Amino acid sequence: MLTKAYAAQSPTTPLSPFAIERRAPGPRDVAIDILFCGVCHSDLHSVRGEWPNIPFPCVPGHEIVGRVTAVGAAVSKFKAGDVAAVGCMVGSCRRCISCDDGLEQYCEHGFIQTYNGSTTGVGDNTFGGYSAAIVVDEHFVLRVSHPETDLAAVSPLLCAGITTWSPLRHWKAGPGKKVGIVGIGGLGHMGIKLAHALGAHVVAFTTSPGKIEAAHALGADEVVVSKNAEEMGAHAHSFDFILNTVAAPHDLDAFVTLLKRDGTMTLVGAPSSPHPSPNVFNLIFGRRSIAGSLIGGIAETQEMLDFCAERGIVADIEMIAMQEIEKAYARMLKSDVKYRFVIDMATLKQAA
Amino acid sequence: MLTKAYAAQSPTTPLSPFAIERRAPGPRDVAIDILFCGVCHSDLHSVRGEWPNIPFPCVPGHEIVGRVTAVGAAVSKFKAGDVAAVGCMVGSCRRCISCDDGLEQYCEHGFIQTYNGSTTGVGDNTFGGYSAAIVVDEHFVLRVSHPETDLAAVSPLLCAGITTWSPLRHWKAGPGKKVGIVGIGGLGHMGIKLAHALGAHVVAFTTSPGKIEAAHALGADEVVVSKNAEEMGAHAHSFDFILNTVAAPHDLDAFVTLLKRDGTMTLVGAPSSPHPSPNVFNLIFGRRSIAGSLIGGIAETQEMLDFCAERGIVADIEMIAMQEIEKAYARMLKSDVKYRFVIDMATLKQAA
Repeated sequence: MLTKAYAAQSPTTPLSPFAIERRAPGPRDVAIDILFCGVCHSDLHSVRGEWPNIPFPCVPGHEIVGRVTAVGAAVSKFKAGDVAAVGCMVGSCRRCISCDDGLEQYCEHGFIQTYNGSTTGVGDNTFGGYSAAIVVDEHFVLRVSHPETDLAAVSPLLCAGITTWSPLRHWKAGPGKKVGIVGIGGLGHMGIKLAHALGAHVVAFTTSPGKIEAAHALGADEVVVSKNAEEMGAHAHSFDFILNTVAAPHDLDAFVTLLKRDGTMTLVGAPSSPHPSPNVFNLIFGRRSIAGSLIGGIAETQEMLDFCAERGIVADIEMIAMQEIEKAYARMLKSDVKYRFVIDMATLKQAA
Repeated sequence: MLTKAYAAQSPTTPLSPFAIERRAPGPRDVAIDILFCGVCHSDLHSVRGEWPNIPFPCVPGHEIVGRVTAVGAAVSKFKAGDVAAVGCMVGSCRRCISCDDGLEQYCEHGFIQTYNGSTTGVGDNTFGGYSAAIVVDEHFVLRVSHPETDLAAVSPLLCAGITTWSPLRHWKAGPGKKVGIVGIGGLGHMGIKLAHALGAHVVAFTTSPGKIEAAHALGADEVVVSKNAEEMGAHAHSFDFILNTVAAPHDLDAFVTLLKRDGTMTLVGAPSSPHPSPNVFNLIFGRRSIAGSLIGGIAETQEMLDFCAERGIVADIEMIAMQEIEKAYARMLKSDVKYRFVIDMATLKQAA
């Protein structure tokens, strides 16, 4: 099936229209007409070739919401007409201990990325959600029970939402816990909403005094300007958990020292150059941990989507046309978006 | 009570005889005639002024085994003639959440170190185990049930033993777990013995091929020369827990990548200059953690001593006279000791 898409042909060419081939649905496949696709920083890193071994042409996009158009004979979870979603993964080995545990993102054999992945291991390249349609094994397709009017704002849940939900749940954010969220961007704004909805006492950290009001509106109980040593010091030794969404290299010690005994700071952003090396004394005195976390498994993604539908939680978005993607990237680089761009895929389909 | 001791008068003077004052036992105090004191790297860092704010004169020593000579009226756990031990702590607030949890080493108000600590907070300075006697609140005095012939080799359990025991227990080293011990020195050799006794599959890591046989003898199931990339690679993604006892700055990534999903590497040594900054991708891909751990609480120290007495576990030691301490330090700097020096305190008491 020849399918309209937007692709980067090289790390130095802007995204432009490109026709890709989607497979005919196999017995376990779900074919989806894409309605909306969120714009993640990973998309930008990929099309600019800032990460190693990016294959080109590259069609990014892994925050996908759409409508099922056809299903294979063995598909039981979906039927034509259903709203469905696809996140960062379209496959995994399904046999290893991590897949058995419902944590396909840690598949021992590597999961198949929604874009820049390989389904055969011999040089093919998956194409993502900046396209009119996609065909995905039903195991990696999520149900969406939000109202249809929310669907654009649901799409960022598939990466920004699950990337913050998974560590918040794993490290047990909830009532009685003091949880920090570092950075108020695409991931951070979801982290604040989700930690608040889970019942934690939420403290947002930002370098921008201009974001204080917005952070409260998102659900933060307190907002700390992280460049203010006095404000930081007032929270020393008090956090059960800190979710750090900032990928730019920064001083981790400033946050580690805010953890209680046995507290953990989990990083979900990987800096392109290293953070200053964290001070080991801060880990030793307090038995503190620095950890990492990668997106989330399919079962927990469904759990998060269902939780958000029940609570009416969606991302705060700004809708763009497919043709505006390069402008959107330029604004993302200036953090000029509250808090996620979402592409209205009708603008791709309607283009000549 | 005027008491014989060995002290450094400044960071640049060798240790030499020095008379210190010990308090008369209060109602809750235990007075101990010191028989043996282990020699810890912290002693060396302190007397050389390599750590900040070391007060002088400095009498080091926090691996203390001795015999009770007198007890206060309110003391219930000890009587004159008992064998008793003192580790790194002689006090804490006894009221905070960490003290309540039996983890006095993380006391929210700071525990009182056995040496270079302050009991009053106004500039006094505790003196450690390089001395003929010590007076300690009974809460911080441990029972020893090893045979009397083992007492010299028991003393290193009070720091090297508990510093490895506490994290091994906290991160649940035991049957079915694959546990790495990095470094085969004073701490590492105890880590191997204890992890083995706890039933874990123990892999020792060393930079010295010459230590392979000795590591097996200590209880390692496997020994890996960490400079051999092929040997290291064979263990990728396989460890539940790694206890890293090496304080010298080194590449943490080489060990982090050996952890399974959800695995933790815990550091018990603090480098004087930072480790190279660990790669965040290695934490994210595998939800791995880097943590720290500090000695151990009084209850778990007693648990460790009882466990070791039951299993016949002691440190491997080389006994020295008090007068040989500077020679011992020089050998420690060359890692020329298997694996802990212990001072026979009779040599101090008998000196003119």
